Amino acid sequence: MTLLWARGQPRWVAFVRIIAAVALALAAFFIVRGAALAADPNGADTISADPDAGVNFVWTLTSGALVFFMQAGFALLGAGLIRAKNTVNYLTKNILDFAAAGLSFWAFGYAFMFGGSGLQPGLDQGNAVIGLSGFFLAGDAYDVSTVSFWFFQMVFAATTATIVAGAVAERTKVTAYLAYGFIVTAIVYPIYGHWMWGGGWLGGEQLQSLVGASAVDFAGSGVVHTVGGMLALAGAATVGARLGKYGPNGEVRTIRGHNMVYVVIGMFILFFGWFGFNGGSTTAGNDLRIGIIIANTFLAGATGAVVAAYVGLVRTGRISAAQSSNGALAGLVGITAPCAFVAPWAAVVIGAIAAGLMLVSVHVIEHRLRIDDPVGASSVHGTAGVWGLLSVGIFADGTYGISGFIAGNGSQFVAQLIAAIVAVAWALTMGFVLFNALKLTMGLRASREDELSGMDEPEHGESTYADDEPPVDDVEVNGVPAAEMQ
Amino acid sequence: MTLLWARGQPRWVAFVRIIAAVALALAAFFIVRGAALAADPNGADTISADPDAGVNFVWTLTSGALVFFMQAGFALLGAGLIRAKNTVNYLTKNILDFAAAGLSFWAFGYAFMFGGSGLQPGLDQGNAVIGLSGFFLAGDAYDVSTVSFWFFQMVFAATTATIVAGAVAERTKVTAYLAYGFIVTAIVYPIYGHWMWGGGWLGGEQLQSLVGASAVDFAGSGVVHTVGGMLALAGAATVGARLGKYGPNGEVRTIRGHNMVYVVIGMFILFFGWFGFNGGSTTAGNDLRIGIIIANTFLAGATGAVVAAYVGLVRTGRISAAQSSNGALAGLVGITAPCAFVAPWAAVVIGAIAAGLMLVSVHVIEHRLRIDDPVGASSVHGTAGVWGLLSVGIFADGTYGISGFIAGNGSQFVAQLIAAIVAVAWALTMGFVLFNALKLTMGLRASREDELSGMDEPEHGESTYADDEPPVDDVEVNGVPAAEMQ
Amino acid sequence: MTLLWARGQPRWVAFVRIIAAVALALAAFFIVRGAALAADPNGADTISADPDAGVNFVWTLTSGALVFFMQAGFALLGAGLIRAKNTVNYLTKNILDFAAAGLSFWAFGYAFMFGGSGLQPGLDQGNAVIGLSGFFLAGDAYDVSTVSFWFFQMVFAATTATIVAGAVAERTKVTAYLAYGFIVTAIVYPIYGHWMWGGGWLGGEQLQSLVGASAVDFAGSGVVHTVGGMLALAGAATVGARLGKYGPNGEVRTIRGHNMVYVVIGMFILFFGWFGFNGGSTTAGNDLRIGIIIANTFLAGATGAVVAAYVGLVRTGRISAAQSSNGALAGLVGITAPCAFVAPWAAVVIGAIAAGLMLVSVHVIEHRLRIDDPVGASSVHGTAGVWGLLSVGIFADGTYGISGFIAGNGSQFVAQLIAAIVAVAWALTMGFVLFNALKLTMGLRASREDELSGMDEPEHGESTYADDEPPVDDVEVNGVPAAEMQ
Repeated sequence: MTLLWARGQPRWVAFVRIIAAVALALAAFFIVRGAALAADPNGADTISADPDAGVNFVWTLTSGALVFFMQAGFALLGAGLIRAKNTVNYLTKNILDFAAAGLSFWAFGYAFMFGGSGLQPGLDQGNAVIGLSGFFLAGDAYDVSTVSFWFFQMVFAATTATIVAGAVAERTKVTAYLAYGFIVTAIVYPIYGHWMWGGGWLGGEQLQSLVGASAVDFAGSGVVHTVGGMLALAGAATVGARLGKYGPNGEVRTIRGHNMVYVVIGMFILFFGWFGFNGGSTTAGNDLRIGIIIANTFLAGATGAVVAAYVGLVRTGRISAAQSSNGALAGLVGITAPCAFVAPWAAVVIGAIAAGLMLVSVHVIEHRLRIDDPVGASSVHGTAGVWGLLSVGIFADGTYGISGFIAGNGSQFVAQLIAAIVAVAWALTMGFVLFNALKLTMGLRASREDELSGMDEPEHGESTYADDEPPVDDVEVNGVPAAEMQ
Repeated sequence: MTLLWARGQPRWVAFVRIIAAVALALAAFFIVRGAALAADPNGADTISADPDAGVNFVWTLTSGALVFFMQAGFALLGAGLIRAKNTVNYLTKNILDFAAAGLSFWAFGYAFMFGGSGLQPGLDQGNAVIGLSGFFLAGDAYDVSTVSFWFFQMVFAATTATIVAGAVAERTKVTAYLAYGFIVTAIVYPIYGHWMWGGGWLGGEQLQSLVGASAVDFAGSGVVHTVGGMLALAGAATVGARLGKYGPNGEVRTIRGHNMVYVVIGMFILFFGWFGFNGGSTTAGNDLRIGIIIANTFLAGATGAVVAAYVGLVRTGRISAAQSSNGALAGLVGITAPCAFVAPWAAVVIGAIAAGLMLVSVHVIEHRLRIDDPVGASSVHGTAGVWGLLSVGIFADGTYGISGFIAGNGSQFVAQLIAAIVAVAWALTMGFVLFNALKLTMGLRASREDELSGMDEPEHGESTYADDEPPVDDVEVNGVPAAEMQ
Repeated sequence: MTLLWARGQPRWVAFVRIIAAVALALAAFFIVRGAALAADPNGADTISADPDAGVNFVWTLTSGALVFFMQAGFALLGAGLIRAKNTVNYLTKNILDFAAAGLSFWAFGYAFMFGGSGLQPGLDQGNAVIGLSGFFLAGDAYDVSTVSFWFFQMVFAATTATIVAGAVAERTKVTAYLAYGFIVTAIVYPIYGHWMWGGGWLGGEQLQSLVGASAVDFAGSGVVHTVGGMLALAGAATVGARLGKYGPNGEVRTIRGHNMVYVVIGMFILFFGWFGFNGGSTTAGNDLRIGIIIANTFLAGATGAVVAAYVGLVRTGRISAAQSSNGALAGLVGITAPCAFVAPWAAVVIGAIAAGLMLVSVHVIEHRLRIDDPVGASSVHGTAGVWGLLSVGIFADGTYGISGFIAGNGSQFVAQLIAAIVAVAWALTMGFVLFNALKLTMGLRASREDELSGMDEPEHGESTYADDEPPVDDVEVNGVPAAEMQ
């Protein structure tokens, strides 16, 4: 029984074993307790109460599938921006962070995030700080609405986890990364998410009574991107720069990745998925504002690409495809919070500013803070995410419930500012705590030899571009040519 | 008229010509006969009878498009797992098997599979063994419901055909493969499909009266994956191992593929498409169980990835990205039959077991049976598919019409077991008959020289990574520089 | 303020500055004027007037997202068919033509195309030649229906722009290409589009009264593909052949691209997106004809692939994956205009003929016209697009409002023929004017040195496959190892 009991194995085995044991025990408890319960597991009651519910389910689930597909975009984008020798390592993290994120969000994260929100059946217990029901989708949470909403929220949690992979790429051990992914989606992400979306104090009446407005974050510039980007920054700072990134006299070196086709296609996949990310956040196809949300999403991304390209052209006389791609992504991150609340012209402005801030941020992080973020995740998601939160307070025009400066309301900006400060503080703090804890226990950084040779063979026994050619044997065994033996 | 009449051409020309002549004659017959007929070709009657039909059409067609996109996933996954020298050959098979599958399923397969089911207009003739109406979508089958349903079913047929491509890769002639693809989707796949889904004896009252339950296969663990996987096994066994796979002393050699990025992105595309595969199988967006189906699909795939990764980590100290990807796919195959009938926790268990069985199966097929399946298709689809069928009989909880062991019903498991045995027996038998028939007539295996040099140039005149650099001529012709002549 | 004011910069800076200044001034005007106006920006009135509107929005927006994703398909297909040394250049054009297209279609194109159509709120001013309202989606055009329709139409405009990128690849300067993209989607595309779809003379009563039928183009064989293909032809002719394409004695040389995997996956992505392209063109999920549209789309594409493969097999004994892919695309282009009006058997015939015509066209353009189109865009989109327009007049069977020859109506064919002639004449004329204007002002063709060395480094400072390995320094700075400095 090697799987359950083995001697002399490294620390990650203990970690996995503890997590698995706790999860199984809790699962057994909740599943047994909930066996007789279930709100509406086949949907008959739900659709008879709301005959139009089908459109909303179709929209939410299709959108969730698109958000899932963003995993392929992150995988390609990152793989292209790093070196071939570490690509299997990066890809493995991509596979396992969405998978582990999905499982930990099923077991714990969803309950911590949405318990007490009352948004769906089985999510009734919780307070302004943390949610406490919906574990394992058991009991009353075994309901078509609750589970559909879980799927849509889970792909957001997985996105947050994945944002970090690029920032710590090319020198972080895969086992440490997996522990990180599980904890972030079980605890770190859900708690801020609860504050904003799950009935907590930022999006609820507490902040309203404090500053006159609750914070809003339509599709997650803050919840997903600021949190993910700040965790990425903390991770990159803690694990340290790649060998050779900074020279002996402090010079900053560019380390170009190994495949620009991957980068651009990765960007296109992310852009495509973003329509689900923002559009699906109504969780209702019958909310026709989805048309404006999706158009705004496009406009901000397109503008971000053009601005980043043009800035590069003016400054260097050349247009960088990688920078243009990051410009598009920054525009998309920026519009994620305000997409539902602003007019198309404002989406263009928001996307342009997001791309500009991203470019400044990349420079500051790389040259001033001297933190090595190989894909620019901290800037694309973190910095543009903060801007996205703030932009709601400026450009929300009141046509969809929220008013910012241009509609004559100043208190919304204050609420957005607080939400942004809290997101940065929470994610940076938790990120430094978590990554330093992993550094001290499991170890975070690959050995110098592995980093120099590439992490693919030592950590994975695979090479991205192996293309083996085995010897071809002309001998026979028992009269059958060896090569045709079956 | 080379296309229709040529001397001295090889056997595949005769094959294609016969198929085409038969198809054209039948098409003319059915189209002429059906010219005056058509049930509801513009949908006006259908939507006036059911004003909510639009949601169901949108869901089914969107899902079908996602399943189509799985072709890109299979293409990438397989291309990555094989060597560069045979990649054009593999890709060509991918293009042409879906295309030929689509045409043969339009002409014959759909009628054999769903004739007599009465599921849609124009599908009224057939018996418990085979269907006999709906050929060429002509006559009453020229109806919005019938044609939409055809599209969704056709992409399933094409998936089945494609599963085999990886198992026989790197040594099978493209012309033989095309003949295989046409016949499988015209006859082999539709007949088992008829038994299960088209009003035949497995899914109908015959098995019900025999063992107390009809077999169910919600989205095709059996119909698509077991059948496809067993055809793959028969194909790989018949065509024989790649040169060099087994050494002179019987040792098994690993032949690593040429691009792990393709492998992982291929897996992500397949995972994405699977939401359509399983979710769309309600063919109704108004059936809200789709939420639980899609969440279960995700959970099983994620668990499969984690389990395969963890087993590798414990056994070798390393995590294989390829093995993790196959783990995800095995989990997805396993949940395909039960996805609608089980609770989320059961999806986790089903995915975990599917991944474990897949790993065992890969070892047994490669080392014990000594069959060379370069991508593991037999195990991922065949073995996990059998498990998927069986798991319905264990975990179906009665919330969606079907009850298994955990809901106190044993007869469902018996029905599932029979369905699994029949699927394996039918597909293996037909697979061996078909591939051996091709071996004896058209020839199945590439020549030794082509296999050693790679099949791309000899069979396709193309090279995956050519990147030509022609000579640049500085001369002029008639006063115009050669390079600028237009 | 380098961004706004700089000396000694090249002509493109002036171009961009002028465009930006005009756009900003107009935007300010329309936005300020429209600030108090808005038809239904949150959709409440729209859905209360039509409670089923949600299904239509979901269908249109999902389809639009799929069409957007075709950008990734074009990027991969083209990247694969060209050489590695120019791939960043090609990808950059892909990023920026969709982005610039989106912005220019937001500012100008949509208003020129649909103003006066009255199809949505805010589109009321225009005549038979050009539309004149809807600029910047401001005023009454800030409406959920108008903006959703904009999104769907905008991705079509972006597709048209992108078609040209492949035809002029490997020798066209990126700045000239960007100017082209902006102008085409602001003016050239929208004007023909207005004539056909926006209330203009081809699709309206003017042609009806002239020849007895208005022209129809369901999803854009003419509006998108013929126009795009003819612009591509004009561009390729104007910029001239790649160095080395034609030899000193006039011989035609094949220049094979650098990655066939990209080509095939690009084709699959395009095929996938085409379901949105054609299916979404109902802009209504409640129009159940979508089922037949999507099935026809598939059948034509599949048949095109099979026909192109088979023709190659008969002629050369080999099957080209690239040619099969282009066959699928030609079939898809061909079915784009007639997809809603014909029966499945006719889709098969249309796809087969489209592939055949494409093959002939590729030969004629390359060998007779001696125009170098590296990806065959002129033939795949232009020639097959013309056939698509004509095929409506032949195969429309009267079940969906339009009747062609087979339904006993000859006047439809005349209308289609006129539409095709107009499309070719308009796009070729505008294409030659535009590309020659760029040639004379900004310069169109890369320098000989850049073309020989590849355009990636000189124009973009990037290399597709860089994979840098910086020196690793073992020194320390202030006691901290250089490589770990942060």
